[in-house]
Amino acid sequence: MTTDLTAMGQAARAAARGLARADNADRCAALETLAAALLSEQAAVLAANAADVAAAHANGLTEALIDRLTLTPARLTGMAADLRAIVGLPDPVGEVFDARTLPNGLRVQRQRVPIGVLGVIYESRPNVTIDVAGLAIRTGNAAVLRGGKETLASNRALVALVQAALQAAGLPGAAVQFIDDADRRYVTELLRLHHYVDMIIPRGGAALHTFCRENATIPVITGGMGICHLYVDASADLARALPVIRNAKVQRPSVCNALDTVLVHQAVAAQFLRRVVSDLGAQGVTFRAEPRALAALGAAAGPSVQPAGPEDFDTEWMALILGLKVVDGLDEAIAHIAAHTTAHSDGILTETPEHAERFVAEVDSAAVYVNASTRFTDGAQLGLGAEVAVSTQRLHARGPMGLPELTTYKWVVRGDYTART
Amino acid sequence: MTTDLTAMGQAARAAARGLARADNADRCAALETLAAALLSEQAAVLAANAADVAAAHANGLTEALIDRLTLTPARLTGMAADLRAIVGLPDPVGEVFDARTLPNGLRVQRQRVPIGVLGVIYESRPNVTIDVAGLAIRTGNAAVLRGGKETLASNRALVALVQAALQAAGLPGAAVQFIDDADRRYVTELLRLHHYVDMIIPRGGAALHTFCRENATIPVITGGMGICHLYVDASADLARALPVIRNAKVQRPSVCNALDTVLVHQAVAAQFLRRVVSDLGAQGVTFRAEPRALAALGAAAGPSVQPAGPEDFDTEWMALILGLKVVDGLDEAIAHIAAHTTAHSDGILTETPEHAERFVAEVDSAAVYVNASTRFTDGAQLGLGAEVAVSTQRLHARGPMGLPELTTYKWVVRGDYTART
Repeated sequence: MTTDLTAMGQAARAAARGLARADNADRCAALETLAAALLSEQAAVLAANAADVAAAHANGLTEALIDRLTLTPARLTGMAADLRAIVGLPDPVGEVFDARTLPNGLRVQRQRVPIGVLGVIYESRPNVTIDVAGLAIRTGNAAVLRGGKETLASNRALVALVQAALQAAGLPGAAVQFIDDADRRYVTELLRLHHYVDMIIPRGGAALHTFCRENATIPVITGGMGICHLYVDASADLARALPVIRNAKVQRPSVCNALDTVLVHQAVAAQFLRRVVSDLGAQGVTFRAEPRALAALGAAAGPSVQPAGPEDFDTEWMALILGLKVVDGLDEAIAHIAAHTTAHSDGILTETPEHAERFVAEVDSAAVYVNASTRFTDGAQLGLGAEVAVSTQRLHARGPMGLPELTTYKWVVRGDYTART
Repeated sequence: MTTDLTAMGQAARAAARGLARADNADRCAALETLAAALLSEQAAVLAANAADVAAAHANGLTEALIDRLTLTPARLTGMAADLRAIVGLPDPVGEVFDARTLPNGLRVQRQRVPIGVLGVIYESRPNVTIDVAGLAIRTGNAAVLRGGKETLASNRALVALVQAALQAAGLPGAAVQFIDDADRRYVTELLRLHHYVDMIIPRGGAALHTFCRENATIPVITGGMGICHLYVDASADLARALPVIRNAKVQRPSVCNALDTVLVHQAVAAQFLRRVVSDLGAQGVTFRAEPRALAALGAAAGPSVQPAGPEDFDTEWMALILGLKVVDGLDEAIAHIAAHTTAHSDGILTETPEHAERFVAEVDSAAVYVNASTRFTDGAQLGLGAEVAVSTQRLHARGPMGLPELTTYKWVVRGDYTART
């Protein structure tokens, strides 16, 4: 492995051309070979991973981090199954759209083609290496990967399998490369490699996304941070709303589509907030309540409820903490969301169709929900089959990104020696 | 007018929310009012423009630049007609696509919404002020404009009309603002205003695009530079190919879709290049020929033909100059294009369908032509009705961008108190 990023970029660009011209069948064959190799070659991968895990213990990493970077036979089996699921998805490349014949006889169409070369920057999850490689190969894109420094050995072993699988299918091995060097300056170099890389996908927290946006000369798919809201309208079926709130907050509190703030209509605030505090409190949730919510709770505000601090409604909790706020009605709920959302996932619980439609029209988040949990903002949950990333920026793709979002298009224009008049 | 860009950004963001919620009819009414005002208020506009023109003369600007920044009654009439043409296009906002019901009963759809706030940076063409304002308003986007320093007075007068037209339609005037200060630092500030601006559109030359890409923390639609190729295959109808080449080179040599290089199959090189040099030479074109093209021309290479220098095939001529090169065949043509194109517009002239299809498959430019002039890469020519820009980057939009390319989408998910399992 080289750490000459220009050379890697040039190799990636050349490989991308080869991959884009390849048949879908060959791209799928590479993924099948890779899926099989994750199982047949698992001894080598697990040995490499064990070295990373041992180093992580020696360096005093937290158990949570060590768990994230640990591979097991079961996890490798899951990764292989995910690759086969990607093979099963429709091929977006080559799709023709907006075809028409113009009055001068020109036949014009647009045609989906791969983006080209993806730069993917992520943390210490070696499964992302395989996931991204699979998504890139399936869509005819090359990729330059930059994983976490704690997983260099694992990634080296995994990328060797990827490159072998590519070559076995007659595809260029350099279609998937990884930066086998922990020096952080390569992140900055990758972000400025605009002659060779077409799109940067950060997979990590808000700090990584901000760093990419600030330093890249390549378009970045930013996302990954969700301050998510559910507004409980006066007409909501409160008994049915409660499990939705619980699901959105408790099911997996550490992810970006987990709930951060509940807004409650003042007419039902006293009644509903008590149920929230009682029900979610029993699940270990603690609460940050603004003054009206505190007042509505009254004596029901037990030790799990604290007054909300000035930053609390601008915090993505990633934990069993929930903000509580009473609003006068729909207008105040929409205004609060406009002021505090990261435009990831926000929803309304209501039995009033006009309120639902106003909420949908006026809340401009990547995913807007009516009577559903914010936890559905996920490629698999919304039917995409695979998820590349969740975008909270507005260009190219928004919300969960599937395979078609890893393509662009070209215009194809056919004439009869046609000149412009 | 303020030059506090944060304040302008905040005002633009608030105005964008208002504009996005407005009816299409109101947005169209604002454009109709503006079109009428360009005629009824033309005295004020022309007086402001005359001040810019006088200053341009005093500052010794070239006649070509002065022509670009000069407004006349006829040009104002044209600008009004262009606005009315924008009114006549279909409204992209609100379009629903990819609607489906998932097995758990969730009803999922995507719905087109405005991008939000556009930052548009351009040069001394006051017509762009009206064009961009019209496109932004029609698609529900706010815009912060930064025009050339030579047109401050003209832009001040034009933006006053835009804001009055917005307000007359009950829309927020701050939906279109312009930076009324020639200090270049405001360009850099605008490029970093990512909390308030969602997309940067540079309209200008390669240097402007590079500056934006290097300095922006906001996604940039880069483009505007075309090194365009036509390959004349051995089977091409040479008599019909010649006028296409002439059209692509001569019709308007100063634009980005004009032809820069002709590649000719060696079997027809001697015959065809002589006709090119004779025919286009009579139109004032001069030629830069690589050695095989010089050899093929032989004595026919008159004074209009020079040997090509090392940079010539990487130069966008913007003038009556044409590169000439002989290739062994399709493979060498495709390889030359891959090495030298800016991926704007490239084409093949051939009677061999398999060659046409290989060219279309393997040349990955924004617009790929078979038997047609590169001059068609233009929103109006390709049937979009209006053109925001021509993108040569690969994300979001590629090639000519029409109204739908000024939108993004949100996911709308409706359930029945649905929780994720």
